[in-house]
Amino acid sequence: MTTYDDSRLGRARVNDSPELIAYYEELAKLDAGALWTVANDIEPWYPQPRSVPVLWRYEELRPLVAKALPLVRADDAGRRVVMLVNPGRRELSAAVGLLYTGLQIMGPGESMTAHRHAAAALRFVHEGTGAWTIVDGEKLKVGPGDFAVTPNGTWHEHGNESEDAPVIWQDGLDIPLVNTLDANFYEVHPELHQAPGAVVNSSVLRHGGNLLPYGTERWTRPYSPLLAWPWEPSYHALLDLARAAEGSPYDGVIMEYTNPVTGGSVMPTMSAHLQLLRPGQATRAHRHTGSVVYTAARGHGYSVIAGRRFDWTKGDVFCVPSWAWHEHVNLDPSEDACLFSFNDFPVMRSLALHREEAYTDNGGHQPVVQDGQ
Amino acid sequence: MTTYDDSRLGRARVNDSPELIAYYEELAKLDAGALWTVANDIEPWYPQPRSVPVLWRYEELRPLVAKALPLVRADDAGRRVVMLVNPGRRELSAAVGLLYTGLQIMGPGESMTAHRHAAAALRFVHEGTGAWTIVDGEKLKVGPGDFAVTPNGTWHEHGNESEDAPVIWQDGLDIPLVNTLDANFYEVHPELHQAPGAVVNSSVLRHGGNLLPYGTERWTRPYSPLLAWPWEPSYHALLDLARAAEGSPYDGVIMEYTNPVTGGSVMPTMSAHLQLLRPGQATRAHRHTGSVVYTAARGHGYSVIAGRRFDWTKGDVFCVPSWAWHEHVNLDPSEDACLFSFNDFPVMRSLALHREEAYTDNGGHQPVVQDGQ
Amino acid sequence: MTTYDDSRLGRARVNDSPELIAYYEELAKLDAGALWTVANDIEPWYPQPRSVPVLWRYEELRPLVAKALPLVRADDAGRRVVMLVNPGRRELSAAVGLLYTGLQIMGPGESMTAHRHAAAALRFVHEGTGAWTIVDGEKLKVGPGDFAVTPNGTWHEHGNESEDAPVIWQDGLDIPLVNTLDANFYEVHPELHQAPGAVVNSSVLRHGGNLLPYGTERWTRPYSPLLAWPWEPSYHALLDLARAAEGSPYDGVIMEYTNPVTGGSVMPTMSAHLQLLRPGQATRAHRHTGSVVYTAARGHGYSVIAGRRFDWTKGDVFCVPSWAWHEHVNLDPSEDACLFSFNDFPVMRSLALHREEAYTDNGGHQPVVQDGQ
Amino acid sequence: MTTYDDSRLGRARVNDSPELIAYYEELAKLDAGALWTVANDIEPWYPQPRSVPVLWRYEELRPLVAKALPLVRADDAGRRVVMLVNPGRRELSAAVGLLYTGLQIMGPGESMTAHRHAAAALRFVHEGTGAWTIVDGEKLKVGPGDFAVTPNGTWHEHGNESEDAPVIWQDGLDIPLVNTLDANFYEVHPELHQAPGAVVNSSVLRHGGNLLPYGTERWTRPYSPLLAWPWEPSYHALLDLARAAEGSPYDGVIMEYTNPVTGGSVMPTMSAHLQLLRPGQATRAHRHTGSVVYTAARGHGYSVIAGRRFDWTKGDVFCVPSWAWHEHVNLDPSEDACLFSFNDFPVMRSLALHREEAYTDNGGHQPVVQDGQ
Repeated sequence: MTTYDDSRLGRARVNDSPELIAYYEELAKLDAGALWTVANDIEPWYPQPRSVPVLWRYEELRPLVAKALPLVRADDAGRRVVMLVNPGRRELSAAVGLLYTGLQIMGPGESMTAHRHAAAALRFVHEGTGAWTIVDGEKLKVGPGDFAVTPNGTWHEHGNESEDAPVIWQDGLDIPLVNTLDANFYEVHPELHQAPGAVVNSSVLRHGGNLLPYGTERWTRPYSPLLAWPWEPSYHALLDLARAAEGSPYDGVIMEYTNPVTGGSVMPTMSAHLQLLRPGQATRAHRHTGSVVYTAARGHGYSVIAGRRFDWTKGDVFCVPSWAWHEHVNLDPSEDACLFSFNDFPVMRSLALHREEAYTDNGGHQPVVQDGQ
Repeated sequence: MTTYDDSRLGRARVNDSPELIAYYEELAKLDAGALWTVANDIEPWYPQPRSVPVLWRYEELRPLVAKALPLVRADDAGRRVVMLVNPGRRELSAAVGLLYTGLQIMGPGESMTAHRHAAAALRFVHEGTGAWTIVDGEKLKVGPGDFAVTPNGTWHEHGNESEDAPVIWQDGLDIPLVNTLDANFYEVHPELHQAPGAVVNSSVLRHGGNLLPYGTERWTRPYSPLLAWPWEPSYHALLDLARAAEGSPYDGVIMEYTNPVTGGSVMPTMSAHLQLLRPGQATRAHRHTGSVVYTAARGHGYSVIAGRRFDWTKGDVFCVPSWAWHEHVNLDPSEDACLFSFNDFPVMRSLALHREEAYTDNGGHQPVVQDGQ
Repeated sequence: MTTYDDSRLGRARVNDSPELIAYYEELAKLDAGALWTVANDIEPWYPQPRSVPVLWRYEELRPLVAKALPLVRADDAGRRVVMLVNPGRRELSAAVGLLYTGLQIMGPGESMTAHRHAAAALRFVHEGTGAWTIVDGEKLKVGPGDFAVTPNGTWHEHGNESEDAPVIWQDGLDIPLVNTLDANFYEVHPELHQAPGAVVNSSVLRHGGNLLPYGTERWTRPYSPLLAWPWEPSYHALLDLARAAEGSPYDGVIMEYTNPVTGGSVMPTMSAHLQLLRPGQATRAHRHTGSVVYTAARGHGYSVIAGRRFDWTKGDVFCVPSWAWHEHVNLDPSEDACLFSFNDFPVMRSLALHREEAYTDNGGHQPVVQDGQ
Repeated sequence: MTTYDDSRLGRARVNDSPELIAYYEELAKLDAGALWTVANDIEPWYPQPRSVPVLWRYEELRPLVAKALPLVRADDAGRRVVMLVNPGRRELSAAVGLLYTGLQIMGPGESMTAHRHAAAALRFVHEGTGAWTIVDGEKLKVGPGDFAVTPNGTWHEHGNESEDAPVIWQDGLDIPLVNTLDANFYEVHPELHQAPGAVVNSSVLRHGGNLLPYGTERWTRPYSPLLAWPWEPSYHALLDLARAAEGSPYDGVIMEYTNPVTGGSVMPTMSAHLQLLRPGQATRAHRHTGSVVYTAARGHGYSVIAGRRFDWTKGDVFCVPSWAWHEHVNLDPSEDACLFSFNDFPVMRSLALHREEAYTDNGGHQPVVQDGQ
């Protein structure tokens, strides 16, 4: 096996000396440096994420999210969102890796102005039945468990048409990624609002049932023409798959929300999954490059991430940093449990950085070294 | 406008002479010839298909198809099929262009041996509820209106598990194409029968709802991993699309059965469509390269093809040769009508031979020069 | 091993009877037929091409080609071409399979009008230094051994700017394929001639040396933006490859002329190769779907095709039908020999019909059953 | 025109209050925060790179690079490299954006051990004729002006076979990108050294002249099978292109080093260009997302970057941050000047973050607000 020994031949192992220190100062004056002083740090044996595993309890967050409703006006906030911030990623406002997530609350009858940005966004609805969003002119109505996307560069505005109940949905964005790549842009809609088309959820109507509209212009944008995946057919698809397939040893029965014209991820930077853990199922651990934000969508259980146990129940959000071992357990003996998740795997794949590894010791289960709570 | 004048500069216009005739004989001895003697024929101004428009009435064919049941044993026939043969394509056993179609009948309890061939096949069920097919080990049960495929090179065998009623389904194959390309192969299954997996219609269970199974090996075969499209969700998808979109002026509300991992056609040589004509709708005429076999799946109406009117009702089959003008009419004032069709458009697209043209005179409608019946 | 026995279960084996014959007549009246009467023919065990192997000797053809020069005016002939016609493919004017080839002669100072067609064309120059062609406005000058393409749908016109010597080049076209697919179109240029750009061979200047022009609009047409591959760098590339690689056991050192923006074939229906047989090399036999027209470009040797030996020397043309065993021999003990060839492999690949097989008996060499001459 | 006003509707504009500050503290305890406190920062109107334009003079760096030769042993340093560090990117050891560059020196007869990493590398040779590298078993010899790649995950080791002169080449890596994505891995070769194949520069021999080797297994790795682009044919290709094309108004005559089997960039994260400025040419300014490291490969001139002038001569290195205006000038009235550059454009394209804009004021030329030296 590999031994991660930085004193071995093939690693940088130069000791400081007065002569070298003087040399380093000379280099610094020219905006230069000696690679060997940082080589082992910037060429690590394996990924060294600063993100740590975190679980955010919905029952703790919800009251604070609700509190924001009277505290700030949506129009003043831009968006009224409580963002979930990884302790290792505060400078980037990231939940894990280069992914952002937050809980957005919209009061009854509330709506906001339209904008667009180079960053891509997605939504997963936690509660409330009045939510709508308009994406590049298509009005979408979304309810609990529904997944919707706002691909990079599309105009979008949101609202809640309920008369009495707030909406809380979870936003997922690649803002930290796009900012790190120095590629973010932001625009307020010139009219402040879009003129939506006559048919609600029209992209959903267009893309059902394993057929595609024919004779229209070929879709060439780098994201899905289908913009929403309602809960019912998505969960039903998962149940169907569970009848036909064993599923993954690491993830249970798992499906990817896909772009129907490519079979690929819904957006070029982020993908999303829905997975089902059978009653009592305990998956085996694996790890991979790429960061993941999970939301418990149904049932209750726990996940072991980097040796720590995190118990979750419906509404909870937790994250798995790149290359951290993780495994999932459904604690209910008779009901399935479902996890929604989104990730940056499309980035890993596009840039050929995807790597995956199974945990082989101990029947595939990590020793739990610490309670994550 | 173009005048199709073969005496103009730019066309071959050499008159025979004794000297030339002698020269042609010299060439023939060397397995050679003078291009200009055939140039205008082999470089026509536009496609010159030998196929003609034909309509086959189900009510006329059905008794003859039924008659085959006692006449030949399925095992002796290989397949008990009445094929539909275009008068201009008898030497190729083609229904139109390089496409074959036929009506296959299977008696109650009947089943046949497994084989495979380089040619690809598809099925559209006309009647009977007991039909099954096993495609590369996956058992599929199909009923009226269902569409299923047997991609090129896959093992397949069929049967009818009904106790009392025959099944009649329509086969579509690219046999004439594959033979013309000198690329057909045929094998009888070494065990005569496949061992089907435990789950029926498993590919349908795996590919519902705009999500795809995740974490399985990437599908790299040149055809769809989804093998069947049952009638109900397909028709429902069409109704949904009709709510969201106007549809095509030439085809009404039309969808393509697609490969969920590519968004493309289900097989590399043949594609299939389902289209809906609104009550009373009369589409405008257009023409395109590529041949089409249509089957009336619901309702009644007529199509005008190359100036001839062909009336159809449920079960009827008709064809449109390459580059023939065609338009469709739903004669029912209150019910929609549906046409199933399959074609060789994937060949046209892969080989960059697709061309399309709208009929602009007379409000988009051809003068009907002759009754097609 | 497979036995090709049509009397076995899994094949059609219905004997005629008076009852059946009457039935067949009933079917014929409805433009229908019984599949089992033709099934074994249209579903053969393996490809049954009507094309046969043929070799055309340049020394025999050249005098007849030259004779055409005074016999017909190029303007009257359209093109002054002696086409090479396979005895099994006369009705299609094909050299082999669905490929056409011919030898075109242009006299000193001669030029012709411009046209275009859906069929694609390619040229390989046999002799003469004055040849030019204008393809979609780009003027190309081509000499002996040069390969050039006229992709489907591009305007083209040719001429010979030599003052004293004719040009003879070989045309290769997919006319039989495109006609069989009912997709051919022909147009005479509205001005009869194109206005060529200022720079000759500009696509060659743009695509040298493993770099591509940057910042121009992305090339999206289905064929190569590079239109000519001169002999010298092509032969040099082959010599370089011969230093780095053993080559193919069936083809020697072989390269494909490629589209520099895709790495794929130069046109969607036809590809071309240049291959080098080392001094004295005798390759092993294989067979594959797809038809090939070969031209001896350098040296002399022979090929064994379907058990017949065909001796070739520079300028000779020969063909290999689909699925025919073939192997090549360089008879020169000290010089390499080169074969240029073109084929319909892109069609086989696009339509997933490619299949290949090595000849394993007898050290990979066919018994020569008959002299091909 | 857009006004970048953060007080307008559509931006976050919440003022602090004691109540809000208390609220923010509550959120912080749950690893959460209020989006509106950072929204305008993380959703900027346009990219806000921390990198600044820098020029590193070869004549200043070279003595310091040479000094490293006796100071540290290559084996102890891992690699003996003086890295160029952007003042705004010190924590990432990046030259600009997420790109690293450095000057590596190898003494006569020196060689190092083999390793590999998920990060990708490229080389551009400044001086010395003895350089070699072995990449996944292929030995490459490279000289001044040559460009070579070490794709992500390939084993590599370098050396200098000269008897008397050092080699200085420039490394370019995506280390900051891969680290930021938490996806870097490092391995020392188990044998410390690779066993190179017999033929030097074999990938160069295989991929010349617009033909590709045929009949070998299809190349499916995400990077170029061609590993080196020697200076002579690359510069020659640029001269050829200059005869056929005007070039880009922003970049002069510019080509991309490409993967011959895809026409795309040589690696999935980095691309490289070679561009020629005609004698006296002054290009117009533009800006785009994506960072660029330039090296003056021939001649002398200057570039205006974000309003600052940077004069360069052969060997100098400079950088252009994302979205910075830039334009180039060749100061030689009779000789062309060439810039080699590498960038992260493939990342921008894969993630759909590419954006580009022309500078339209003042004839396309920025006012020079400050001397960059």
